[in-house]
Amino acid sequence: MGGSIYGRLFRVSTWGESHGPAVGVTVDGCPAGLVLTTEMIQKDLDRRRPGQSRFTTARQEADEVEILSGVFEGKTTGTPISMIVRNKDQRSRDYGNLAVLYRPGHADLGFDSKYGFRDYRGGGRSSARETIARVAAGAVARAVLDQAGVRIGAFTSAIGPVTADENMTDYCAAQESPLRMADPKAEEEAAAYLEKCIREQDSCGGQVTCLIDGVPAGVGEPVFDKLDAALAQAMMSIGAVKAVEVGDGVSASRSRGSLNNDIYAENMDGVPVKCTNHSGGILGGISDGSRIRLRVSFKPTPSIAAEQPMLGRDGKIHRESIKGRHDPCVVPRAVAVVEAMAAVTCADLLLCNMSSRIEYVRRIYNNSEETI
Amino acid sequence: MGGSIYGRLFRVSTWGESHGPAVGVTVDGCPAGLVLTTEMIQKDLDRRRPGQSRFTTARQEADEVEILSGVFEGKTTGTPISMIVRNKDQRSRDYGNLAVLYRPGHADLGFDSKYGFRDYRGGGRSSARETIARVAAGAVARAVLDQAGVRIGAFTSAIGPVTADENMTDYCAAQESPLRMADPKAEEEAAAYLEKCIREQDSCGGQVTCLIDGVPAGVGEPVFDKLDAALAQAMMSIGAVKAVEVGDGVSASRSRGSLNNDIYAENMDGVPVKCTNHSGGILGGISDGSRIRLRVSFKPTPSIAAEQPMLGRDGKIHRESIKGRHDPCVVPRAVAVVEAMAAVTCADLLLCNMSSRIEYVRRIYNNSEETI
Amino acid sequence: MGGSIYGRLFRVSTWGESHGPAVGVTVDGCPAGLVLTTEMIQKDLDRRRPGQSRFTTARQEADEVEILSGVFEGKTTGTPISMIVRNKDQRSRDYGNLAVLYRPGHADLGFDSKYGFRDYRGGGRSSARETIARVAAGAVARAVLDQAGVRIGAFTSAIGPVTADENMTDYCAAQESPLRMADPKAEEEAAAYLEKCIREQDSCGGQVTCLIDGVPAGVGEPVFDKLDAALAQAMMSIGAVKAVEVGDGVSASRSRGSLNNDIYAENMDGVPVKCTNHSGGILGGISDGSRIRLRVSFKPTPSIAAEQPMLGRDGKIHRESIKGRHDPCVVPRAVAVVEAMAAVTCADLLLCNMSSRIEYVRRIYNNSEETI
Amino acid sequence: MGGSIYGRLFRVSTWGESHGPAVGVTVDGCPAGLVLTTEMIQKDLDRRRPGQSRFTTARQEADEVEILSGVFEGKTTGTPISMIVRNKDQRSRDYGNLAVLYRPGHADLGFDSKYGFRDYRGGGRSSARETIARVAAGAVARAVLDQAGVRIGAFTSAIGPVTADENMTDYCAAQESPLRMADPKAEEEAAAYLEKCIREQDSCGGQVTCLIDGVPAGVGEPVFDKLDAALAQAMMSIGAVKAVEVGDGVSASRSRGSLNNDIYAENMDGVPVKCTNHSGGILGGISDGSRIRLRVSFKPTPSIAAEQPMLGRDGKIHRESIKGRHDPCVVPRAVAVVEAMAAVTCADLLLCNMSSRIEYVRRIYNNSEETI
Repeated sequence: MGGSIYGRLFRVSTWGESHGPAVGVTVDGCPAGLVLTTEMIQKDLDRRRPGQSRFTTARQEADEVEILSGVFEGKTTGTPISMIVRNKDQRSRDYGNLAVLYRPGHADLGFDSKYGFRDYRGGGRSSARETIARVAAGAVARAVLDQAGVRIGAFTSAIGPVTADENMTDYCAAQESPLRMADPKAEEEAAAYLEKCIREQDSCGGQVTCLIDGVPAGVGEPVFDKLDAALAQAMMSIGAVKAVEVGDGVSASRSRGSLNNDIYAENMDGVPVKCTNHSGGILGGISDGSRIRLRVSFKPTPSIAAEQPMLGRDGKIHRESIKGRHDPCVVPRAVAVVEAMAAVTCADLLLCNMSSRIEYVRRIYNNSEETI
Repeated sequence: MGGSIYGRLFRVSTWGESHGPAVGVTVDGCPAGLVLTTEMIQKDLDRRRPGQSRFTTARQEADEVEILSGVFEGKTTGTPISMIVRNKDQRSRDYGNLAVLYRPGHADLGFDSKYGFRDYRGGGRSSARETIARVAAGAVARAVLDQAGVRIGAFTSAIGPVTADENMTDYCAAQESPLRMADPKAEEEAAAYLEKCIREQDSCGGQVTCLIDGVPAGVGEPVFDKLDAALAQAMMSIGAVKAVEVGDGVSASRSRGSLNNDIYAENMDGVPVKCTNHSGGILGGISDGSRIRLRVSFKPTPSIAAEQPMLGRDGKIHRESIKGRHDPCVVPRAVAVVEAMAAVTCADLLLCNMSSRIEYVRRIYNNSEETI
Repeated sequence: MGGSIYGRLFRVSTWGESHGPAVGVTVDGCPAGLVLTTEMIQKDLDRRRPGQSRFTTARQEADEVEILSGVFEGKTTGTPISMIVRNKDQRSRDYGNLAVLYRPGHADLGFDSKYGFRDYRGGGRSSARETIARVAAGAVARAVLDQAGVRIGAFTSAIGPVTADENMTDYCAAQESPLRMADPKAEEEAAAYLEKCIREQDSCGGQVTCLIDGVPAGVGEPVFDKLDAALAQAMMSIGAVKAVEVGDGVSASRSRGSLNNDIYAENMDGVPVKCTNHSGGILGGISDGSRIRLRVSFKPTPSIAAEQPMLGRDGKIHRESIKGRHDPCVVPRAVAVVEAMAAVTCADLLLCNMSSRIEYVRRIYNNSEETI
Repeated sequence: MGGSIYGRLFRVSTWGESHGPAVGVTVDGCPAGLVLTTEMIQKDLDRRRPGQSRFTTARQEADEVEILSGVFEGKTTGTPISMIVRNKDQRSRDYGNLAVLYRPGHADLGFDSKYGFRDYRGGGRSSARETIARVAAGAVARAVLDQAGVRIGAFTSAIGPVTADENMTDYCAAQESPLRMADPKAEEEAAAYLEKCIREQDSCGGQVTCLIDGVPAGVGEPVFDKLDAALAQAMMSIGAVKAVEVGDGVSASRSRGSLNNDIYAENMDGVPVKCTNHSGGILGGISDGSRIRLRVSFKPTPSIAAEQPMLGRDGKIHRESIKGRHDPCVVPRAVAVVEAMAAVTCADLLLCNMSSRIEYVRRIYNNSEETI
């Protein structure tokens, strides 16, 4: 049925294969009158671009975005915003043997089972290059959110077994770090761990923490389009994600009600403030106005240089190594993707929430009094 | 925008409040010709019904379902199946003070922020009684899946800190256990832990593991409607869920590529079989034909008998205890809900997958040859 | 895939068969805080109810609606509004022979081809009783529209060859007329024509004109969810409708640009006013703030008392007459259905339009300044 | 909320403005394994291309399509098919004064009211160039339909008051005629009428008839996604369309039940065949296996060379003539657009119908026996 379209009101339609001519995305439903420039998109794309450190694939892609529609005189027109990024540095020869092999940990067998055949070059549609479309759409969403005072920041909270201090959440520091970690001590250790993985022709997983500030209370639609449910879909849809946690996540399952319930207490001015945030800013699927906190777990990059047994289309097992250029850990580059998906989801549900009260209907249509 | 409708082709539309006259669900898009009886629905509803053990709320509800449409002469007609369960044992007087208080850990503040006011009786729309609709729809989905050879079973894998042995997955044993655990030793310990929580006027969380067998390879739609992404939304949309893990989940983030990649090896007949299942049966969002494995983490029941500080609509903090009848741990009754959401999601994506190949189009429309 | 759910934000999910226990509808996405009573729904249902004149079926149905959810203390809560009407005066024995016959002009063959079998009693799902759900949902939509100053009125503009004067648009007069015509002279003639049809064991078609006032300029979503496109789907989805015209409709195809373009001219105060309305209030799929005008053509009731040749399930032709109680012309009772579908569609697109400008986003989220 | 995405399973997402860099479309949900070439798309685009006769705009556009994704080794992969056409011969200077004027009969006022401003160059998003995306998507849909034996053909049935003989339906003749008429005598008259319109600096409307053969009985989803309802939305969403008729359309409203009901009679071999087709192949919203027949009415091109009064953004009335290059009648070029929208709608509902029976589920998933 497709599956490449996401969102309710802010709808993102993505397309493109790793080794096809281009990848791209169309955003339909972005409100009109929003300042939007190529630079705003490019800035986020540059953050996920490969080739920025020794820990990312050597594939060289400028990933330059072109806006093809929906913007006029620097502002969004309300009509679809089409964005395209041409693929340049394809090296399809690396993938010749993949036509007949199913790489472990990849969707190859799934695509063949589903569609009868597949574009095997560089993973085709299931390549990480697909996330370019997410990041471009996310940049548009971020501009929408900015108008409602919402800010999103993500960073690496774990690389393999190396965990960053949860209290170190300096977003700017994370942005400047090659591994996108806000804890310099943990980053040093993580870098050493990654070097070791590379030496051993292996890869590792990790975690991304995403913080969202400024979402007003009331965002999220009960029962199925809850804010956390929508974020869970959005995050789990990113390649290599195996777990999504909101607030205390898994550890909440080991807690007690008396400890896990968040407490409000009066501050020195007598105003009640939320003192704890075990819930991660979402209760019953609706934002409560406090910081939203997610943790997303990524599995190790399945493409490793070491030789592995692989199932073949011929129904036999082959021992091969995977050529091509791969990140030893997807997490640092995934940070921008997590932010993008959080942005798209929040923008979407923020727009959905605009019709939640008849009072808002009257406010937009300038009908100040109740007429029934 | 609503949010009470779920699914792409197999669409579930739920409604009802805890203390309104009834709760219900309409399933639109169920294939015609499926044997469906009230008993099939009732059987699953009985599994989530309260009042079955000392560990569940004392609210007495028969939860008897009536099928109002979509079934004729014992078979589904292809038109919407409407199912209704009347509420009977409402005790709204328990909730009088909740009109002006926001219970910790509940959606009360969110609903008020979103809608301007709320039906506060028994949690209104955000009550766990909402899950009756999910379970009824799930029973229909299960009947569909049965025709494709898919089986779903869930059980309690943890109650607070008490964890069941992962290798004990006897589904029948779990069904007969009051805590829905397949590991009798862990259950004994868990029961003791729950007793302690009750004595201390407290509550606890836990985990549900869900296993899905028989899903053919190829189910799940890249990029956003991946099978794991859809399951993540489905599970996270259940009240009190704070984390969803697929396969090894969070622990995959601490693994290495060489260990986390699943291995195929030849069995004694020379046929390749999958030896490990770190991926949980889903790769790149598409089923690979092996067992699908999910773990869902629930937070502790937020309604506890002990007195707690609560934010009031008056912007002040009040110390009150929550009356009403509540489960000390939602997990045992949530098992049926997890199964239901898994069933609805799998049935939906199984139907979606039916149009993935032009060969299938020809097969349904009896057009045996390619005509281009 | 279903097909019984309609709408983007204001979503209507209908269910029920003619001779099943009940018919009903759930409205998901109605804004909270709207005054809504059973009487408001019942009033519209009474207008489509059978048995009100000698020109309608003798089937006796009180069609009493019960609201099962989504309303608390007289106001909508923002959660799904479930409404149910029990079927009472089923006379299934009239339909015994229809199990094996395909009535001319009905969906019988279509349902059998699609689903393999069908609930043949009284037309099952394709009975006109299905429109009860539309009318109930329409009453809710009407309450929403009322808050934005939108008013919808429809009336019979033709019965068979008898056409009402287009300038006679007194809605109140039409409401009180048994044939829902605003032109008393034409009505008299139409009544005589209908009597003749009944005497001749025949039926006839007719037209409904629908006027919508107060829709602000800007409603309708280019390219596919245009206001006229959405109205066309909504109207054509009503049983027996064979044509939908907007503004001058078919006759616009015979006009010239110089004549068909609507003209603005200054009134005596120098303010430009629209002098003509060939377009019917919609240009490029978007409302222009003037009166919206639709004409909907209904075919003759296919169930006639005279004997007809009918295709049977046995692949043979049978000569039979159709028993059961049928309107000689569906148009008078369809007036309320046309209004309902117009109301649902306008309410839906009015809500959709609320997120069309970033300025509205700021207005709802109280962010008065641009922040980029 | 957008509005540029159409379809349920076969989803078409369009974008682009008349004077932006390009227009395009992404088709998500096309089954895999379908032969698809650029030539197949180009062939249909060429049929709607301007500059083919003296009756179409002089704008010169090659309208060359590039397929950017979703096709591998000449076959669809099941993933999104992105298609792009660069705009070349923009002459934006023609539209300078339109920034401050609302052209009669156009969406200018609507766009400004909706979005606060608009891309006024060449009509921006509401330009007829938007239909390129529809035609490209339609070519893909046509390839799908071809595999199920469905054929679609449309032709001009009226130009202004000149009507073609309804019995002349030679599709090939229509394709070769500059006005796309299958009746050479009517075409001659129509050409003369058009010449007269051009001389008088005026324009005219017309009608397109669309025939669809080979749709199996059973396609269309009751209640809201009926085949005729979906076609009505699809057709009415095309710019300048003011009426959609199915089968006998408007004239059915003046008929009698005894005449309008279609008759089956036995042919010489004793096999029942449908003798009449007043219904146009659709009953109760579901195809009955016979020829589907639609008539679509287009209003006269609103952009005429003669001077007209126009409302300005300044709230005053201006007398101006519209520069730019416009067709005196949109109908001949609209024929390809009508076909495309019919193709997309039929392909979509054909796919939807694949999950209508549990027997089909078993057929796809190779589960030959009932298991309940």
